[in-house]
Amino acid sequence: MSLKADFTQGFVRNQWYAAGWASEVCDRPVARRILNEPVVLFRASDGKVGALEDQCPHRLAPLSLGECVDGGLRCGYHGMVFGRDGVCVSIPAQDVIPPTARARAYPVIERYGLIWLWPGHKPADQSLVPHVPAYGMQGWEVLENGYQHHGANYRIEIENLMDPAHTTYLHKETIGNPAAKNVPVSVAKSDHGLKAYRWIENIPPTPLDRASRDFGEGRVDRQIAFHFALPATSFVDIAVIPAGSDRSEACLSAGVRTYSYKFLTPETQSTTHFFWLHIRNFRVGDAAFNASLRASLEKTFQEDNVMASAIQQEQERTGLRQKTALAIDRAPMMALKMIDQMARSESAGD
Amino acid sequence: MSLKADFTQGFVRNQWYAAGWASEVCDRPVARRILNEPVVLFRASDGKVGALEDQCPHRLAPLSLGECVDGGLRCGYHGMVFGRDGVCVSIPAQDVIPPTARARAYPVIERYGLIWLWPGHKPADQSLVPHVPAYGMQGWEVLENGYQHHGANYRIEIENLMDPAHTTYLHKETIGNPAAKNVPVSVAKSDHGLKAYRWIENIPPTPLDRASRDFGEGRVDRQIAFHFALPATSFVDIAVIPAGSDRSEACLSAGVRTYSYKFLTPETQSTTHFFWLHIRNFRVGDAAFNASLRASLEKTFQEDNVMASAIQQEQERTGLRQKTALAIDRAPMMALKMIDQMARSESAGD
Amino acid sequence: MSLKADFTQGFVRNQWYAAGWASEVCDRPVARRILNEPVVLFRASDGKVGALEDQCPHRLAPLSLGECVDGGLRCGYHGMVFGRDGVCVSIPAQDVIPPTARARAYPVIERYGLIWLWPGHKPADQSLVPHVPAYGMQGWEVLENGYQHHGANYRIEIENLMDPAHTTYLHKETIGNPAAKNVPVSVAKSDHGLKAYRWIENIPPTPLDRASRDFGEGRVDRQIAFHFALPATSFVDIAVIPAGSDRSEACLSAGVRTYSYKFLTPETQSTTHFFWLHIRNFRVGDAAFNASLRASLEKTFQEDNVMASAIQQEQERTGLRQKTALAIDRAPMMALKMIDQMARSESAGD
Repeated sequence: MSLKADFTQGFVRNQWYAAGWASEVCDRPVARRILNEPVVLFRASDGKVGALEDQCPHRLAPLSLGECVDGGLRCGYHGMVFGRDGVCVSIPAQDVIPPTARARAYPVIERYGLIWLWPGHKPADQSLVPHVPAYGMQGWEVLENGYQHHGANYRIEIENLMDPAHTTYLHKETIGNPAAKNVPVSVAKSDHGLKAYRWIENIPPTPLDRASRDFGEGRVDRQIAFHFALPATSFVDIAVIPAGSDRSEACLSAGVRTYSYKFLTPETQSTTHFFWLHIRNFRVGDAAFNASLRASLEKTFQEDNVMASAIQQEQERTGLRQKTALAIDRAPMMALKMIDQMARSESAGD
Repeated sequence: MSLKADFTQGFVRNQWYAAGWASEVCDRPVARRILNEPVVLFRASDGKVGALEDQCPHRLAPLSLGECVDGGLRCGYHGMVFGRDGVCVSIPAQDVIPPTARARAYPVIERYGLIWLWPGHKPADQSLVPHVPAYGMQGWEVLENGYQHHGANYRIEIENLMDPAHTTYLHKETIGNPAAKNVPVSVAKSDHGLKAYRWIENIPPTPLDRASRDFGEGRVDRQIAFHFALPATSFVDIAVIPAGSDRSEACLSAGVRTYSYKFLTPETQSTTHFFWLHIRNFRVGDAAFNASLRASLEKTFQEDNVMASAIQQEQERTGLRQKTALAIDRAPMMALKMIDQMARSESAGD
Repeated sequence: MSLKADFTQGFVRNQWYAAGWASEVCDRPVARRILNEPVVLFRASDGKVGALEDQCPHRLAPLSLGECVDGGLRCGYHGMVFGRDGVCVSIPAQDVIPPTARARAYPVIERYGLIWLWPGHKPADQSLVPHVPAYGMQGWEVLENGYQHHGANYRIEIENLMDPAHTTYLHKETIGNPAAKNVPVSVAKSDHGLKAYRWIENIPPTPLDRASRDFGEGRVDRQIAFHFALPATSFVDIAVIPAGSDRSEACLSAGVRTYSYKFLTPETQSTTHFFWLHIRNFRVGDAAFNASLRASLEKTFQEDNVMASAIQQEQERTGLRQKTALAIDRAPMMALKMIDQMARSESAGD
């Protein structure tokens, strides 16, 4: 791991990235820069979502200034209509459609309320869409449509998300937990990535734990696991179970359990779309709790954004990434290495 | 016509450009960047307008921070006074005026309510000021003082203005006319430029036509002619006459006639001063109509600006101008060729 | 003195610069860019001020996002604590502190209500802190905490401050005095710098003079002296005494006397921290007069800022500093030469 910041590093392209919430893309096209490319998301009259390069091949007008019509998207300048495959299907007052009249089309899939986009040139592989098993299962409450625009490269965001140690300081007013600060963190490889986790054992349940499950007079064990899945998904899995009980998946889900997903999509080398999705198995249907939880999550993620953006600025100014390494860097550094390896192997044509 | 965007292309310098409205330049100097040069417009105490480089030769303070005085413009920093010819005529507490104490002066003419400026180094040729014959003629109503700041190179603006086809889509809420979309456009050379026009024949007059002239029960022919005059003037000439009648200039002006002028002045390579002037021979003196017409024109021109600015951004990002050519490009491409030819011949020293 | 603007000129580093008002730095760290370096000012729990590079050596987070704690400043990201000497004294959940875990520390001194910072690498020399003899003396009123952010290189600011001639024009609504414009200015070397001054002799006292001292029916002599002290201090010394009386320091201070200090600290090559401090020996304790004087000074210094910022922009655009030289340039040019000489001799390693 070089201590120099390398801002020319390529993105991992042959993967799915969250491009937008399905609920955002209704009757009007939506412009969004993804992996430094201008993209327009739209829903044609058949209800299916399309994604094109946000550029009319005629004079380079953004197609996102146009409108959704039968069969595709109509440019707002001269009325050329493009299908979801990017092929122009009509030009006003002109019969012949030149073969150059086409816009690049991106593969898209709608899943988990999100629109997933494949920016690479290799064939899109649907099996690679990130897995969110609890989404839509009975007994689980979903907070969706979470979005923030963050002012840092997604690698800085991943470092932050794979780093339990910062919560005590950066989030002292929200989720920070001074009791946790000296419990060691274990790191292990996982499917498609990495997991950094710790069990805080034999502690009293919090009032929220008590209100959510009947722990009687007993104490609890609390797992906090930070997961990373290539290329840019992070989720935290928190489970609270009776102290000493079995730690199988089934037992964890019988306890108080929360999944907090973040799907990071590079916008540019220095900015990131931060999509978040929160799923839990307690206080299901509690609208007031949902509202206060959403506000608290937004505040926490903004604390991360303020720090990550400041680090981005300083790394750009200096051309450095860090000057000293700490023990807590282990999981973040492993995650970054995995990303770098994937990006290198992709650009080597593997 | 290369499909690459060339942002290093020089401006045509030895021509008159609209620099400001005469009404703007009263007792205070006005700063304006013209063809990428800082200019100060001012009116000396004799009422005559002057234009100097907006830079005091002493420490490079903008002269536009100074004030109009007898005999010229006084720098707001140390009180040096410059005449309309740029020569320094006084320096406080100093008798000798060094020959280096002068600012570049630009030739200017006041005409049609506008201040015209000649940015070139060849002698200014008064015969080249754009012609606006109907300005000030009896029976014609003038809307003047029209100005917008547009975020595109003036070539992109000219393409837009010589392109009747876009009105159906970009201006669908203002002047767009779906009926016109399949009527072919003719293109012809004209004095100092080009004309793209079409006649829509034997149609019913609009309610506005009827309210402006007595067309009886008859039908009308409607001309829409888009004119381009080098280097950067555009005007639309709309005439509505009884169907089948003579198309001489006199007959056109006996009908319902409108001239919509745009004088484009490059500010930088990516921005343009958009001066507009509207002249018509109907509803003369109708203040309410004037107000609603002005509002409608401003809205239409802003629609153009939004599109042109977005195209400018995308052309800058990609270094391209277009990826496919359409039939409707004929007039815009001819206009751009004329500009390029004039710019090249000027830089070749012709 | 070249007429070209040289924006690569180094700063004078081995000197004290005003970094902030002591009153600004209480319980929260303060971020400030000084000589193009990010600095954090903070007050540790012992009340003493420290100044560190505003960059945690771990991931380059700004330390100014952290908090003041016992023994130093704690990084807001992972809780590393740094002392005033920049050495890391604790890392949460880690026993060994690597030797690379340190931030650059700057020498600082609190004096005259200001925090003075030494940005150079040579040992700091306390005798070089600018002298403000009247500060804190009985019978003198101090206006402090004056600060403006100016949009020009500090050399342009110094030119302005050593130039009595501009006040008639730029400050005509505040301190400009048309009567002074033809009184010649003398220039002389002084301790650590330069002095440009003039005596306006045998004039009637102003109403403010009369209200401040008993001049009877007599006339007065008025001194205005513009001082420059290397590298970036300016002060104006105004004294009003009975006409013809002795001009010793003691006599000047027996008259109506004002010191108006400006401590300029380069922020970047194109911006300057403008700290001002005003001291006078009349209307001592007059709160209403203080308020109106402060407002008038702020307005005057903003007039300077508007002009200096515009000059900075034009010098950057053209790469030039001036095109003609005037008689009034003598003192400013001498001051700039002194700065250049000091910067050159410093970079030559003297």
